[in-house]
Amino acid sequence: MTDGWPKRVYVALIHYPVMDKNGEAIASAVTNLDLHDIARACETYGTAGYYVVTPLADQQELVRQILDHWRIGKGGSYNPLRQKALEQVRLKSDVAGAVAEITAIHGGPPRTVATTARRKDGAIPVGQLQEMIRTDPAPVMLFFGTAWGLSDDLMDAADHILEPLMETGDYNHLSVRSAAAIVLDRLLGR
Amino acid sequence: MTDGWPKRVYVALIHYPVMDKNGEAIASAVTNLDLHDIARACETYGTAGYYVVTPLADQQELVRQILDHWRIGKGGSYNPLRQKALEQVRLKSDVAGAVAEITAIHGGPPRTVATTARRKDGAIPVGQLQEMIRTDPAPVMLFFGTAWGLSDDLMDAADHILEPLMETGDYNHLSVRSAAAIVLDRLLGR
Repeated sequence: MTDGWPKRVYVALIHYPVMDKNGEAIASAVTNLDLHDIARACETYGTAGYYVVTPLADQQELVRQILDHWRIGKGGSYNPLRQKALEQVRLKSDVAGAVAEITAIHGGPPRTVATTARRKDGAIPVGQLQEMIRTDPAPVMLFFGTAWGLSDDLMDAADHILEPLMETGDYNHLSVRSAAAIVLDRLLGR
Repeated sequence: MTDGWPKRVYVALIHYPVMDKNGEAIASAVTNLDLHDIARACETYGTAGYYVVTPLADQQELVRQILDHWRIGKGGSYNPLRQKALEQVRLKSDVAGAVAEITAIHGGPPRTVATTARRKDGAIPVGQLQEMIRTDPAPVMLFFGTAWGLSDDLMDAADHILEPLMETGDYNHLSVRSAAAIVLDRLLGR
């Protein structure tokens, strides 16, 4: 975490609404390492919280089991560093629930920022988002999509869309774990 | 990949010799998503190859099965983008074998660069490595350690050690997947 940087950036990993490979809206399954890797990146870069958003009851139960293992079960004593990272995780059924919680904590709604590997009109560079964070006390909530990315509806509903990480190149298919790590590094790491 | 950047940066994911949580040298198990995530980052940032290094026969067999599924099995038709990324992967029993292959391809040995989350004397910043790549035609080989990181012997044997990604902060425990993505982004992404 950059020294003196305010701790009010949130990450949200979205499992619904996201797209399948044909562009249809789906609810995706939770991936164990998404929880671990992104929580560790969040803790390293000093975010204020990491929301895992899924409306599926069985997937919520899976998340709870993983978190319990590391937070209160054997995982924590085996690897306290992993335990510390997973304390960032907050499970929510939908984006609105996460937004409401952040709003309650900070006394005002977060600035929501969708991430995507695709070019979108009006997308902002990461430097502009850094400047917003510097000059505006509102919390910031970064949306990351699982599967084939955030649905267009959710992207349109966000206050901002972040420019893709790669402007050039004909291959731009990072895992959401890698993309989240790189966005946090560009936003908070320098 | 940065336009005009020479394609001679290699990534090596090391499963031996690495450290366990007590600092003892071990051979670690291969993680499926290490293959996928790092291959996708390598393809996105335009590396010349991604070496997966393990001396264990059963782990080599696991790597071959994963690669076969995506390169020549059903995975490739399901997701050609994943297939393309995994074409970066080259399986080797030891670091020396990977170094020898790169040496044969480029007509000279690679500049080897160890990465670590720990502070080490004489470690170089990523900007210095970028400058070396710009001014010196030698290939570059980045070592990433699984488990609790590269063994001291391997770190000492490398030509250079890269500075840790985070200079400050009391938590610095990224997954190797996240760390590799961020290093590639800092080195080749801007």
